[in-house]
Formats: sequence, structure tokens, C-alpha cells
Amino acid sequence: MSKLQVAIAGLGRMGARHALHFNNLTPRAQVIAVSSPKPEELEWAKQNLEGARTYLDYDEMLRSEPSLQAVVVASATSVHAEQAIKAINKGLHVLCEKPLSTRVEESQAVVDAYRTSQKTNPSQKVVCGFSRRFDSSYRDAFDKMKSGLIGRPSVFRSQTCDKLDPSGFFVEYAQFSGGIFVDCSIHDIDLALWFFGEDSVVKSVTAIGITAVSPELRKYNDRDNALGIIEFYDGRIAQLFCSRMMAAGQEDSTEITGTAGKLAVNTQPASNLVNIYEPSGIRREIPPHYYGRFREAFITEANEFTASCLDDTPPPMRLEGAVAAVRIGCALQESLITGKKIEFDEKGERIVQAKL
Amino acid sequence: MSKLQVAIAGLGRMGARHALHFNNLTPRAQVIAVSSPKPEELEWAKQNLEGARTYLDYDEMLRSEPSLQAVVVASATSVHAEQAIKAINKGLHVLCEKPLSTRVEESQAVVDAYRTSQKTNPSQKVVCGFSRRFDSSYRDAFDKMKSGLIGRPSVFRSQTCDKLDPSGFFVEYAQFSGGIFVDCSIHDIDLALWFFGEDSVVKSVTAIGITAVSPELRKYNDRDNALGIIEFYDGRIAQLFCSRMMAAGQEDSTEITGTAGKLAVNTQPASNLVNIYEPSGIRREIPPHYYGRFREAFITEANEFTASCLDDTPPPMRLEGAVAAVRIGCALQESLITGKKIEFDEKGERIVQAKL
Amino acid sequence: MSKLQVAIAGLGRMGARHALHFNNLTPRAQVIAVSSPKPEELEWAKQNLEGARTYLDYDEMLRSEPSLQAVVVASATSVHAEQAIKAINKGLHVLCEKPLSTRVEESQAVVDAYRTSQKTNPSQKVVCGFSRRFDSSYRDAFDKMKSGLIGRPSVFRSQTCDKLDPSGFFVEYAQFSGGIFVDCSIHDIDLALWFFGEDSVVKSVTAIGITAVSPELRKYNDRDNALGIIEFYDGRIAQLFCSRMMAAGQEDSTEITGTAGKLAVNTQPASNLVNIYEPSGIRREIPPHYYGRFREAFITEANEFTASCLDDTPPPMRLEGAVAAVRIGCALQESLITGKKIEFDEKGERIVQAKL
Amino acid sequence: MSKLQVAIAGLGRMGARHALHFNNLTPRAQVIAVSSPKPEELEWAKQNLEGARTYLDYDEMLRSEPSLQAVVVASATSVHAEQAIKAINKGLHVLCEKPLSTRVEESQAVVDAYRTSQKTNPSQKVVCGFSRRFDSSYRDAFDKMKSGLIGRPSVFRSQTCDKLDPSGFFVEYAQFSGGIFVDCSIHDIDLALWFFGEDSVVKSVTAIGITAVSPELRKYNDRDNALGIIEFYDGRIAQLFCSRMMAAGQEDSTEITGTAGKLAVNTQPASNLVNIYEPSGIRREIPPHYYGRFREAFITEANEFTASCLDDTPPPMRLEGAVAAVRIGCALQESLITGKKIEFDEKGERIVQAKL
Repeated sequence: MSKLQVAIAGLGRMGARHALHFNNLTPRAQVIAVSSPKPEELEWAKQNLEGARTYLDYDEMLRSEPSLQAVVVASATSVHAEQAIKAINKGLHVLCEKPLSTRVEESQAVVDAYRTSQKTNPSQKVVCGFSRRFDSSYRDAFDKMKSGLIGRPSVFRSQTCDKLDPSGFFVEYAQFSGGIFVDCSIHDIDLALWFFGEDSVVKSVTAIGITAVSPELRKYNDRDNALGIIEFYDGRIAQLFCSRMMAAGQEDSTEITGTAGKLAVNTQPASNLVNIYEPSGIRREIPPHYYGRFREAFITEANEFTASCLDDTPPPMRLEGAVAAVRIGCALQESLITGKKIEFDEKGERIVQAKL
Repeated sequence: MSKLQVAIAGLGRMGARHALHFNNLTPRAQVIAVSSPKPEELEWAKQNLEGARTYLDYDEMLRSEPSLQAVVVASATSVHAEQAIKAINKGLHVLCEKPLSTRVEESQAVVDAYRTSQKTNPSQKVVCGFSRRFDSSYRDAFDKMKSGLIGRPSVFRSQTCDKLDPSGFFVEYAQFSGGIFVDCSIHDIDLALWFFGEDSVVKSVTAIGITAVSPELRKYNDRDNALGIIEFYDGRIAQLFCSRMMAAGQEDSTEITGTAGKLAVNTQPASNLVNIYEPSGIRREIPPHYYGRFREAFITEANEFTASCLDDTPPPMRLEGAVAAVRIGCALQESLITGKKIEFDEKGERIVQAKL
Repeated sequence: MSKLQVAIAGLGRMGARHALHFNNLTPRAQVIAVSSPKPEELEWAKQNLEGARTYLDYDEMLRSEPSLQAVVVASATSVHAEQAIKAINKGLHVLCEKPLSTRVEESQAVVDAYRTSQKTNPSQKVVCGFSRRFDSSYRDAFDKMKSGLIGRPSVFRSQTCDKLDPSGFFVEYAQFSGGIFVDCSIHDIDLALWFFGEDSVVKSVTAIGITAVSPELRKYNDRDNALGIIEFYDGRIAQLFCSRMMAAGQEDSTEITGTAGKLAVNTQPASNLVNIYEPSGIRREIPPHYYGRFREAFITEANEFTASCLDDTPPPMRLEGAVAAVRIGCALQESLITGKKIEFDEKGERIVQAKL
Repeated sequence: MSKLQVAIAGLGRMGARHALHFNNLTPRAQVIAVSSPKPEELEWAKQNLEGARTYLDYDEMLRSEPSLQAVVVASATSVHAEQAIKAINKGLHVLCEKPLSTRVEESQAVVDAYRTSQKTNPSQKVVCGFSRRFDSSYRDAFDKMKSGLIGRPSVFRSQTCDKLDPSGFFVEYAQFSGGIFVDCSIHDIDLALWFFGEDSVVKSVTAIGITAVSPELRKYNDRDNALGIIEFYDGRIAQLFCSRMMAAGQEDSTEITGTAGKLAVNTQPASNLVNIYEPSGIRREIPPHYYGRFREAFITEANEFTASCLDDTPPPMRLEGAVAAVRIGCALQESLITGKKIEFDEKGERIVQAKL
């Protein structure tokens, strides 16, 4: 059994984690090369990824690694699409971090490249890394829904809420993130499409928001807390909450209400199974960051992506969904900034309001 | 110590409960008269309210009971305002079930009557029965917020979700209820105003909804599940969920997120302190109806209203808030049906969209 | 409908509560007299129990109140039995606080007096106030067990654990309390007998304990934390934990494991429905004292005892059980101090170990 | 970096898991050989452990694998000690499944062999696999205790309760298991020694038990539910509950009460973060078996044992503790069967009761 030969593009916080997951916790994969424009990240790779070759230039890596089979794109969001397309065009499998791009057209270009390439390379796999699809709790909820346990899923509520980071990180990050709905809520939107069905067509989106702790976000047209509501054409509705202001830690929770029951995921968050009894009451801790919540899901993602490539089995989700999620996320972000409700027709085309 | 002499108008489900609360569980009050257009309800009163005189006609009751001090208006919503105003004009204390009316103008008329009457009767008390204001958990959360525990409250999430009632009750009820936002979410709106401050000015409301289990609701312009978002002028936002479709029971929960923490009320609902371990897992039951959740609050309401009347102490909330809640509820209901976002200026005046 | 004419003997913390429950929260009862050797307690009664006559001497009260129907004995434990017997002998209904006595013989004397009196006064009611029997959660668990939900109940675990009181109160109290198993665990023992069946015969008891925070307890042969195990003759076992050292508040929880399931009561204690999210995690508060946990049960007790007296319906439990509980509690306390396992034969007679 | 060369002895349920953990989920280890007397288990190994050589005979494996560095003993409990000693005497590192033996002397023999071998091979590691020591929740609780969060730990409560297995498995298993206290509670005893300190000296143990669902267990001197209490000489006490009768799944929970607080581990068990809302209430599932609860701990165990061997760092616990746990477990089991309290002096020597 030979191992999948993997390269990692980008070794920032998430890239380094992907590298370790693929190299150490994915028995059927091996990281043979990494690229990063930052020398210190390559230095880290030399210490931590035995045998992996290091490149300052992504293109050079693609040119120089003839045995390469798959690329994990974990670089800055602004180059996700470009790097993914280059790898696709070389016939490589690709696992691209979410979002494919902060823009719809660019996201679509990745899909287009993939579908073109697939014509001659039908076993090629390209996947967008929506980690929650690999989380055992979300999967359990999905399976229970599929089994009919809650009837027809009709109302979806989900939130991605980060712990308050007083360092100002999120302000600078907002320049490139696409905004809070594209950066955070993209996960919730993907979940809505997963639970409601990938073919769900959006009828309208509306969003509102505030800058409760970081007024500087306004210069980048972003907010630190936002609420959105989404109407679908098949009689389903969704509400989203995204925030950068949680006190206790990462609070990512989801509820799917059906005509016969409800499934709730992580509405009682906890880091582990410990409760602390002290004079102020009973306390439990929660994960400070999304990685504390989703580490196992990322490892599962690495293993399942690897298996899909090696065994030529269907990837766990269709790439088109990643474009649909960006489209909804961008519309919510636009509504957040313009204050307008945005409507779509049943083909998914934007309904433009007549001007006065 | 003489007891407050109380009459109950209306002896339906909630009226009968008020009657028993005031008569049996409010040591400083005594129910001396009741009115109802339904003879069977008066018969019930004869069995259960020892010594209370019974009237088929509300006006006659007011005329015939010279010792009467206070009226609890618990009749059909459509006569709340009219009955309240008549009692106010006679100088009586009034506890009126929510909402004052399903219409803003009529609600305002109750306030106007009260403020006029108060000029000559400054110790008169008129209160709208928002039961959650008397709930010990909501009060504990409010006190903690006031103490600064969560910083500035900024994002409010609340839901009033009824257990699925397959009898069709809610369809018929929808003719008179004012719609799901006026009937259910009025509580959440009142809570938002309480936690954010009674003077909060709404900037916009948007709502969407579906009929997942009761399509017949559409003939009365109602929905069985709806989502709403509310913007306030002072940098605060709120999201609401109302439903008639819960499987497990009544799910009324609220979260107030501030800049330094969050308070959650009833996000883990439970009927009592019992957990059942069985082959399918660990289970707990939840109250089937709002009365199971809020019984203690109603009893507190009766006792505190009584004390306020007897001791001439300030009532627990200002009546104006009840009009503000109806105004927001009606706007949400309108948005739900028209699909339009509704906006207000900083004085609370509706911004009318220019026609084409 | 005339009200039950009630006297309260003893107006300490619990006596005052009983007085208010019967006077204000029990519509069918009225407190007409109170006795206490402490003038300041009688002064309190004059302020808070309108119309109740006050007596420094219990016997005088019994002599002077011809209309008296029932006595609530809430005085010091050392006079419970004596006062109960006097009231019984006068033909009065009696609700006696737990325990009847810290000694088995004296407890039995109350039962004997009752059964003698009942021969000529069959409608007389004498009840020992095991408040948990009136708690809605325990009742729900009991009903579920009775319905067969957990099969045959076989293993019982229960704890009565008080919040740490650094004032030294419990040390002085230990002189008269009968010891931690008689004072605290008596409730758990009563629950075990209720859930396992009042006729359950104890086979053995063993106990161990420590003084972790109050070594001075040893001078009164008491401990601040103790564990006990009880064997019953019909193949059932129980474990008890009692403590005076809880940090977070009162922790009284119970689990009943049957051959087909388990019922847990209050294993996740909480004061109310509020959760607090703050930088240290998610926190909830718990009741600091047993009254915070069982207030509603005490009110139910007052109302049901009253109804039983007025309507001549069976009291909610048999008085003999109160003696059985004291017997087990005393045996556990003895085992705690002597370090010996104590055994009983199938008739409930103590098996005395042969001496060397 | 070369990988630790590991052999697995025994490929039953737990052996196979260890094999996969070491081979696939421990980057620094490699399974090079396995032994089992069952050909079908070796066949499984050929399919699932690429490159591992297979042996029907343990001794032959030890003889035939010159590059072997470490052995995982996961065979039947009855050969744990013998196999461990053979590997120790060859200078190999050993991870031995718990218990070392069901008998104290044999357990001690493993320690003796280790300490003798270590004199000439000081970097040799021998560890008994108490998986809970590697569980992140137990570790978090331990660290919090060590930090002083709960004051002095004084009362320990722990239970190991298996899901009811109607197949009769546990009856046959009881012939060799050493009894329920040695098989199940050994984990809780090890935890007590960990949290109270490895040098804690037992003063007494007492146990009681029943056969509620499997009376046939009596022929092997075992029970299906048992309770034990343990006194330590330093003013600490512990209570244990072990069962084969849980309806909902594996319920292994622990509480450590200190003079200033309490830590609870898994007192609210859950399989994952999903809650199911349905007409019967709110439900969550729990792991059916210990592996569902402790899988991550076993993987951590494999990785940490490997690191300890390769880097010559101290193993995560002292082997002597494993003997102490067996000693206490055997005493509890004896008390369970004889009905006698068993006492020890301060040196740990059994106090023999004088005969009549």
C-alpha cells in the first residue's frame, strides 16, 4: 500500500495543522513537500515534517515534484482559487481550505477548472474543506435527520461565534476575510445547504449588524456581530448569528427543527467532561478556538480525503456547494452593509430592484 | 390588613388560572366577582371561587360592585382594551393580559386613558401582564446584567415556541391573535425592551416565515414558523424565532450577549430535576405548555400587582412599554406577510418607501 | 369551607417558614396560635402572623386553644417526640418535623401514642415531615419507577450535602443533632425506604467518615463527611454520602438504578434556568441551602397535610416509616463511630457479635 | 527518527485496538510482530497490519524478533504477568493491560522482575495500562486539583458501570476476571490512588453486592452490582459502585470532593454534542462501551508510552501503583463475598481478626 504523496501550500496556523494531520495522523498519506513565502514557516517544516522538501514558491513546488498526487491549499484566502486552479490543471487532487474565494466568480472559476479537468481525468478529486462536514456530532445529527427522526427539516439556526480577541487581530484580518458572513457564517451556510439539500434555492437574504467592540471594523465594511435570515424557495428558513465577541470561548452551535422534532448540535458547549464545583457555582470550560472544537474533524477530513483519492471513491461533498455558500455569504455581507434585503428568483438569479 | 378586592374578567384557560392565583395564592387579595359571557365558566366559578359573585356582563359587574378595587382583564384579546379602559375610567387598578390589543392605536388608547385618569387618581395602577418579567430566572439574568456582569448588552436572541398542537387550535386562533409575532413574540419583544432599555428606538424590522405544518394559516395571513431581526438605533440587534411546531414541548429561551459575557435563560429546558436513563439514552422531559414553564411567574405577578395596589408602590413596569411591544410585533407581522423590510426614523416614525 | 385551625410549636428558622406556609400559602389553613420559649420569636409572630395568639409555653397553648385542630411541631429536635405525643393525646392532628427523635425508642413512642389514640379517634392524622416526599421531582421519579420504567429498583444512591458553613454552626449543632447520619442522611434513608418499599428489611449497615474541615466535631462523636452502605434482605443495596463541606451549595441528589433503567434526581443541580457565559467558562448557581431546593415541597406538604386532616383522607405516608428511618440512621451513626459493621436478622433484630 | 519496534501479544478486542493504535495512530511506532493462539486473529493481522509478522506462540515471537523493542501485553488476564515478566527479562519495554494479574502476589512478581531488570537496564519502561490516566478530562481534573482549586481532596466517589449485556458474556467472563471489583473497579481504585496520592495507605474496605440480573454469577463468587467503601489512614475516604446492568450505556464517572471545591468527571455522560428533541422530551445518547468513552485515551497511551521508550523519559506512572490497586480490589472482592470488613494496619498489613 503506497501512501498518498501530499504537498501543503501555506504553513500558517491552519496550514501547519494540516501538515501535521496528513503527515502524522493519516496513515495512508505522507507530506513530501511544502510551500510558503515565509522562510520561518519553512524552517518550522524542516523541524517538524521529516523528509518534506520546502519551497518559497508554490509554482516551483508544482514543477519540481513529479511524484506529487495531492495539494492541500491552506495559504492566504486571496490566493486559494489561483493555487487550487493551478493544481487542478496539473491533474492533482486538491483539498482547498474554505472559502474557495471571497468572491463568487473566482469561486466558480475553481469549479469550472475542476469540471474541465475531470473530463480527461475522471478520478481527480477537488474538495473544499468545510470541516464541520467531518465532525462526528454533525454527522450523527445529519444521519438522524436522514433517518426521518425529525420529519421534514424546516427551520435552521446556526452560529459561528469567536472568542473575543482583544489583540485587534480581527480588524486587520477583516481587510481580506471577505467580511464576517464570508469568513464565519460560511460554515453555517454550508451546513444549511447540507441539511436542507444542496439544491436548495435561496429566495432572499437580509442581514443587520453592529460594531460593539471594534468600531474600526467599519473602515473595512465589516461588523463584529451580525444577524442574518435566509428564505429558501421550498418553504424553509434559516437564521444565522456570527460574532467576534464571545467571552467564554468558541460557540458554534446549530439547531435543525423539523416537522416532527429537532436536532441540536453543541448548544451546551464544553471543552471536556469536567465540571468544577466552587463557591460561585458549577462551571465548565469551553474550547477557546475553533480548532479546540474541530480538531478531530480536521483529522477525519485528512483521512477521508486521502482515502477518496487513493481508492477513487466519491469525495464527501460536491464542489459546487462551496460556490453556493460563497454566493449566499456575499449576499448576506452586502445586505449587512447596504441595509437592503436581497432577493433571488427561482433560478437563483438576483432580482434587481427597479430604480426610482 | 384588608385584602385587595379583585374582579376577574374572562374565565377561559388563563382567566381561571388568574382567578385561582388571586383567590388562593395571593394572601393579600380576594376575588369578589367574576364576569364571563359563558354560563359554564360562571358555573366553574361557583364551584371554585367561594364567595365570588358572577356576572354574564362585564359592565354590569363594574356597576354592581362598589367595593371593587382592581380588575384582572383576561378575556378575549379583542376586548382587552375596551374592558381595560372602562375599568380605568372608573378609577380601578387594572392588570391586563397581554397584548393590550393586536393594534397599536387601540393599545395606545389604554395608555392614554390611564395617564388621563392618573391625573386625578395618582395612585392608580395599570399593568400589562408580561409574565416573564416576574419569572425568577429572567429576573436573575436581568439583575446580573444590571450589575455589569456581561458589559453592555448588544445582541439579543429569544424564542417563543409552542408545542405542536395537532388539533388545529392554532389555525382558528389565528383569526384573532394578531399573528404569530403579536401573539408569541410579543413576550420576546418585551424582554428585548426590558434588557436593552425601555427607551430603545427601533431602526428596522425584517421577518420571514413558512407554514410547515399548517398551510391553512395562510388564509389568516399567518405562519407557523417565523424568524425576525430587529435593529435598534443605539447599536443593538435582536433576533426572534416563533413557532407552533415544537415536538418536545414549550421552548422559550433567551440569550443576551454583552461586550463582556452572555446570559442564557432556559437554553436547556427541563420540566424538573429528573433524568431518565434508558436504552435509547438519557432523557428529560420539558413543560408541554407555557403555563408549566411560567406558573410561578404568574403567581408572583398576582402578589406583586396586589402589593403595588395596596401599598401604592410603583408597578413593576411602565404601561408604555406594552404599546412599544405591540408596535414592533405588528411591524414584524407586516414584514412577514409583505416580505418588505420596515424602517423607522430616530423618533420612531415609519419611513415610507417612495412609490415608483 | 372552614379552615384548618393550626398551631406552630417552635419558630426557629424552619418553624417560621412553616408558619408562613400554613398561614399565607395554604388557602385551607389558618395559623391561630404559636408557641416558643424565645420572646423575640413571638415578637416576630406578632408582626408576621396576623391574628395568631402567642405562647411562651407549649402546654399552655394546648390548654388555651379549644378550637385548635392541628399542631406543627417545629421546635428543637430534643422535644419533638414529647410535644408530638402531648398533641396526639389531645386528639390533635400533628405534622412533626423530622426526625421524630434522635433515638429509636422515643421515635417509637410517638407511633405508639398515635396508634393508641387512633383507636378512639380514627380520623386523626400524624405525619413526619419528610419534605422530599412532597417534592415534584422525587414524585415524578417515584411515579416513573412505579410505572415499571426502570424494572426492579435495585441500587440506590443518595446524598445530602450541605454547603460549608465556616461559622462553626454545625459543630455546636452536633451536640443535639443525633449525628450526621441522623440529621442529614435521614432524608436519604426515608427515600430508600420509599423507593424500595416501606417493608424493606435491613441486613447490614457500615459507615466510615472523616473530619476534613471541623475536627472539633469529634468531641460530639460526629464527622463532617461520611459514607454509608446498606444491605437489604430482598437483594437491594444502597449507598449514602453526607457532608457539611460542599463549596457550591446544597447538593442533594439521588439515583435509583433498576434492572431496566435508572432515574436520577438533581444530579445536575441548578438554582434556576440561568447560565452565565464569562471568560472562565459557563457557570450556573445552585441553591445555597436546603430551603432553596425544597421550598415548593414544604408548601405542598402544608397543603396536603391540611387536605388530609380536613377531608379525612389517608396521610401521604405511614408514621412507622419515620421510626424505621431513625433506626437505620442510628445504626449508621454507630457504625461510623465504632468502625464496626452492624448486622440485623430478617426480623430486623440486631445480631450481636459474640464477645471473645 | 527511527520508529519504536512494537509487538502485540493477544489480538482479542482490546489487543486488536492496541495494534491499530500503535501501527496507524502512533507516528513514532511500528507494529512489527503479533502473537495469538487463535489463527483467525493472526489472519486479521495479516489483513490489517501490513508488514507485521504473526506468531501462534508468544515465546517464539520473543525469540524470533531481534529488532523488537517493546511488547504490548493484551492477552487473557491469566497470562498477563507471565508474558510481561518474560518480556521484562529480555530487556524489552512493556505496556501491560490492566490488571497485571487478578492476584496480588503475581502482580508483585511483575514489579519485582522489573526492578531487578532495571538495575542493569535503567532505561527500561514497564507500564500498566490504566487508560483513564491518559484521558484528557481526568487529566484536566487532576491538574486542577494539583493547582489547589478544590483544597485538600478528601472524599472520592467513582463508578465503573457497564451496559447490560443480555448475551451472558459477563457470566462466563467472571470465571477469569477476578471478580467485579478487580475487573471494573480497578480503574476507580487506581484513580483514587492517583488523586489521593500513590502512597495512601488503606485502613479498611467493606463491600456489599447483589445479583439483580445474573444470579448465575454466584457460582463464580461474583455479583452484578456492588458497592464498596474504603478508608485511608490520612483522613480520606472513597466510595465505589460497579455494575453490569446499566440501561443507557457505559457510565464511568468520578467525583473528587476537597475542602474547598469538587471536581466531577463525566457525571453528565454523552456520546457527542447532539441533543434530540422529540415528543418524549430531550434525549442524548451515551457511549455503549468503555472504548467509546476512552478511545482517545488509549491512543494517547500508545503515543506517550512510545515517547517514553524512545526518549528515555519517565513513564507516566509507577508500576507499584498497579499492585496497590490489585491489593485493594482483591480485598473489596473478598469483603463482597464474605460479608466482612477487612482492616489493615498503617504499614499496609492485614489485621487478622482473632478467632473465637
